[in-house]
Formats: sequence, C-alpha cells, structure tokens
Amino acid sequence: MNRWNENDVNFMRQAIELASSQRGKTSPDPMVGALVVVDGKKISEGYHSRVRTPHAEAWAIKKAGKLARGATIYVNLEPCCFFKAKANPPCTQTIISAKIKKVFIAMVDPNPMVAGKGIAELRGAGVAVEVGLLEKEAKALNEVFIKFITTNRPFVTLKSAMSLDGKIATTTGESFWITGIESRQRAHYLRSINDAVMVGIGTIIKDDPELTVRHLKGEDPIIIIVDSKLTIPKNSKVLSNSPEKVIILTGKDASRAKKRSLEKRGVQVLSFPLRSKEINLDVAIKELGGRGITSILIEGGGRLNASALKYDIVDKINFFIAPMIIGGSFALTPVEGAGIKKISEVFKLKDTSVARFGEDILIEGYLIH
Amino acid sequence: MNRWNENDVNFMRQAIELASSQRGKTSPDPMVGALVVVDGKKISEGYHSRVRTPHAEAWAIKKAGKLARGATIYVNLEPCCFFKAKANPPCTQTIISAKIKKVFIAMVDPNPMVAGKGIAELRGAGVAVEVGLLEKEAKALNEVFIKFITTNRPFVTLKSAMSLDGKIATTTGESFWITGIESRQRAHYLRSINDAVMVGIGTIIKDDPELTVRHLKGEDPIIIIVDSKLTIPKNSKVLSNSPEKVIILTGKDASRAKKRSLEKRGVQVLSFPLRSKEINLDVAIKELGGRGITSILIEGGGRLNASALKYDIVDKINFFIAPMIIGGSFALTPVEGAGIKKISEVFKLKDTSVARFGEDILIEGYLIH
Repeated sequence: MNRWNENDVNFMRQAIELASSQRGKTSPDPMVGALVVVDGKKISEGYHSRVRTPHAEAWAIKKAGKLARGATIYVNLEPCCFFKAKANPPCTQTIISAKIKKVFIAMVDPNPMVAGKGIAELRGAGVAVEVGLLEKEAKALNEVFIKFITTNRPFVTLKSAMSLDGKIATTTGESFWITGIESRQRAHYLRSINDAVMVGIGTIIKDDPELTVRHLKGEDPIIIIVDSKLTIPKNSKVLSNSPEKVIILTGKDASRAKKRSLEKRGVQVLSFPLRSKEINLDVAIKELGGRGITSILIEGGGRLNASALKYDIVDKINFFIAPMIIGGSFALTPVEGAGIKKISEVFKLKDTSVARFGEDILIEGYLIH
Repeated sequence: MNRWNENDVNFMRQAIELASSQRGKTSPDPMVGALVVVDGKKISEGYHSRVRTPHAEAWAIKKAGKLARGATIYVNLEPCCFFKAKANPPCTQTIISAKIKKVFIAMVDPNPMVAGKGIAELRGAGVAVEVGLLEKEAKALNEVFIKFITTNRPFVTLKSAMSLDGKIATTTGESFWITGIESRQRAHYLRSINDAVMVGIGTIIKDDPELTVRHLKGEDPIIIIVDSKLTIPKNSKVLSNSPEKVIILTGKDASRAKKRSLEKRGVQVLSFPLRSKEINLDVAIKELGGRGITSILIEGGGRLNASALKYDIVDKINFFIAPMIIGGSFALTPVEGAGIKKISEVFKLKDTSVARFGEDILIEGYLIH
C-alpha cells in the first residue's frame, strides 16, 4: 500500500466513516461518504442517507460551492453515471461540471449499471481518477450492497448466542440471559441494520419473541418465520404486534384456511415445495431477494441454523460466547441437524475477528463457499 | 497504582519475565526472577530454574559482588526465610549479609512456612521493603504454585479443541485436525508446562494418543488415565511408550489380575470407591496432590470434562476454537454429561482472555468456585 500517501488515506478513512454513520439507513442503496479537499484541507463533506436524498458527492460539492473548482474529492464508491430519479443527476456529471480536478475512489461500484463506466466517464472528461484506496475497508463496509446488487439475493448473517462449550440452552431448555446486556444491545443493533430477521417456528413457539429493536434506537426489521406446516400460534407476539411486518415461509401443503386467515391480518405467506419436509431455503432466499429484502439476520434456533448452512445461504456468522459452561449431551447447540461427517467437509470460515461485549466474546467470520 | 514509579515497574516486569523464562522447569518450586539495581541501572540478574539450583535472589546477588552493598533488589516473590537444603541458605540472610538497602517484592510468598516472615525478617534487619508492585501479574505467573502450596492439590487446566459451534468431533467421530498446527503446538506446550495430563479411557480407546511433547522441546508429562473399570488395552501407545509415567485411576472393584499385570509393567494403579459408577475426582485429585503432582492438564473427552467440572476440580479453561462449523444434534461437545438445568447454576468463568493461534482462537478463563 506504499502507493498511497498518508493524507489521502486519512481523507478516505473519513469518507468511509461518514458513510458508515448511516448504516442501516440506506437500504437498498449503498453507504457512501464524500469529502471535498483543497490544498490538503477539507472544505466540505456529504453522505448518502435515505433513498432520494442527494448522493454523497453531490451534497459535498454543493456545500463546497465555488471552492470545488480544481478541488480533490474522496469517495468510498465509484460515482454513479445514470439517472435514477430526476432529483439526482448522475454524480459523474456533477463532478465534471463542478470542475473537480481529481477523484479518489475506494472501490468500483459493483452495480452492473455502473461497474467502471463512471470512472471511464470521469477520465474521458479529463478528471484524474485514482481507484483502490482503502478498497478492502470499503468492500467490508458495503458487503450487503455488493452481495445484493450482484446476485439479487440478500446478504445473510447467522447470529447465535451460546456458552463457551457451545450450548444455546440448558438441558431443560432455559436460554434467556445466557449473554449479558452489552451482547443483547449488539443483537438489537444487528436487527436494526438488517432489512429482516429470520427465525424458525420452534423459536416462536418456545420463546414467543418480539424480534423488535428495543435496547437502542433503530428501525424494527421485517420478521421472516420458517414454518413449513403453518403451525404458528395466532396469538404470537409477532402477529399481535405488527402482522404487516411478518412474512411466513411455509410448505405448499399447509392449511389454506390458516393461510387465508393470516393473510387477512396482513401477514405475507409464501408457499414453497418441501424437500424432505424442509423448505428449500435456497429457493426461498431468492424469492425474498426478489421482494427487495437485501439483508437477513438469522436468529436460529439450531435446526434453522443447520438448514441455512446446508442450503449454503449464509454469508457471515456472529456468534456471541458467554463466559459460562453449561454442559450436557442433550443440551441444544447452535447448529443441530444431521451434522457433517468428515472434517474435510465441514463449513469453513475465513477472516474471523474477535470483539468483546461486556463479559461476552463475539466471534465474526465469513463462510467460505 | 500511582504509588509506583515507572522505573520500579519496569525492573519488576523484567524480574517477572526472567522468572517466566523457566516456566515448566521449576515444579514444585515457584518461578522466581531477581534484579540487582544500583543508581537506576541493572547490575545483575538471576532466576530460579531446577530444584536445588541457587534461588534467584542469591544468584543475582552473587553476580553483583561488592556492588550489591547499598543496592536495590527486585524480586517477584517474597524471599524465603528457611533452610530447604544446605546448598540454599535462606534468601533473607543472603540479602541482609550483602547489605542490600531496599527490596521490592511483587507478592507475599503464600507458602505457610514464609507468608510474610521473610518480609518481617528483612525489615527487622533494617532493610527497606516495598510489597505489591505488579502483584496481579506475579500472582498470575505463579498460579500453579499458589494453588498447590496453599491446598496441597494440583492446579487443574481443562483443555479442549472445538469448532465454533461447540463440537469436538463430527457425528461419525472424526476429531483429528479440527485445530491448526499453531494450536497443536500450543497444546504440546501446555503439556510441557504441566506435571501431568489427564484423559478418560474413552479417549485412549478411540484415539490411542501418545500424550507426549512432540511439536516443541519440553518434558513429557505424567499421564493420568481415568479408567473406572480398568479396560485399558494392553497395547495402548501410552503403555508401550513409558508405562512408568502412567497413573491409572480405577474403581475398587476393577480386576485385580489386570491391576497386578499393569503394576508389573511399572504403571501406578490407584483404586477409588465409585460413586454412580464414576470415580470421585475430588478425592482422586487430593491423592495426586499428595504424590507431588502440582499441575494437571485435562485433555477430555466430553464425559471426563463434565465429571471434572461436576467435582469442581477445574481452576482454568483453555478452549481452542477452530474457524469451522460442524453441526449435528449428536456430534460430541466439549462438555457432555447430564448438564446443568438452570442458567443460574451454570459454571461461570471470570478473567477471560482471547489469543490467536494461527486461524484458531484460544479462550482462557478461570472457574468461579
């Protein structure tokens, strides 16, 4: 990385931080931050927030006014080069007309409608363009957007909370308060930055969770319930609270009467053919992507987790480990199901990292597909 | 900690590092390091290695020669005040006769034969003594010695290696190569610094391990096998390699013929009354302490681990977590047995810390008794 000088790195880092300040508030758009710099000094900044607000570059350039002429701009994603809405002209045009001299871009926009065309347009107009500064960080920032825009499938995070010996409940099924308050806050934050959470019907029946964002400010996610036989209790909290936010994935043969009664309450019920009594999550996830869901947080239990891994829909894991040992041959574990037979065939993870939340340890990692 | 100045802290840290350089080579003695300092400059240093070598303070003072007069000495453990062997006069006397002016001591010697008497003797002779500098670090360094000298019971570390979802083997029992080479090296290091390793008979029958130190230089541990029915195969590697290093814990009713034949080969067989078909590990550990074993590394499997926790003999855990998910309701977990029913009654850990060994994550922690 000797190619970049320290000032450039610092400005790009600021652009990324600006972008990430809007995490959870840009879906289905990417997070973008931009800085206008003249003579090594920041003149203005902008970020993209809700859909339809100005793009980060446009906002920063507008604030810079005449100073934008001959300035350098730092932006974590390749500027767009197409009209999405009348209010938002392509950022490439905004940059060219403002007579910006140089553009630092962290990563090429994976959106097939951009994908280097923005860079080509800028260069064609005589703007100097540098690509790849803090690319790795920029890609991590927008991992959800990258997955969705290139595959039209949601980015899936598998979240679990367990004891150090890998138990998610005691032998009698007690599972509340395994992790501490800091982890639970983090878990609610994860809900707030994902479009949807997904749970198995077992979790609904056993715990009757609300699956809302309570420990911090943030938007409640869509609730996806995997319920192949449509056995969801009518008085479940998730149905009482906001049925219009609930999507149930069920089998083709589930009761039509129950389906209709749920739909009357505003619940979306999607039917899928079953495979060995299980919903094919690969097909289901594609359908959910088609409905504009860009990110899903799977909150188990162990059977749904096993199924999600089996159908290879998981991109990332977030395992919270509490400093306790529960033990027990029959205690539930974070991933149940049939399990893998050969060590050579297990689900492998890369880029793992560790963070502390109070007394708990969070391990993050990415599935190697 | 404003009480201490930076120079003093640095010198004591060096003394602790010197001491720890002999980890695994001082049992049953503690690890001790000492520095002689004059006018803020280190004159000499010493550490305690094998039993019967000079004590750290005596060695450092001897090397300092006449410079010791009026000097300051830093030592991580209270100097001894009793004759243990003719070759080793009490360190307190050595310090007093060398006319050392000031002694910094990290921690009081928990040995009931010292326990403050050394400090009192020094002060009585007009030597200035400061106690408690880096006390926490010094206590962590000698955690094994502290446990053993105060209770006559070994310090027990429970080691396991598992997948991120808490499985120690696949559903078919494959368990080799879950963790990577760096973790296996660390595991061999753990063997080298413990007096003994302990495994269940299930592990001997299933894996036929050698339980020696191979991935690095170090002394092979004593091998303790929990085998209540004395079913150990006569051709097990542990018996073929060095039967005189093997101690088998068995039930009172185990075959006398088998016991005699094992004893003929040099194996020690200790018989204990069984409690619900299990050896009472609390009683067994006491017996092992009585035989001079100061530290034990338990290397499972899951049933022995559960039993060790139940009998409350575990002081520390070392769980290696590999970046993989195995899954399976019936895959073995690091702690099996009946398990705990209520979250309020689980085994809780404190002072957890995280380290990386290659791709693996090591979580260390201490049982709260």
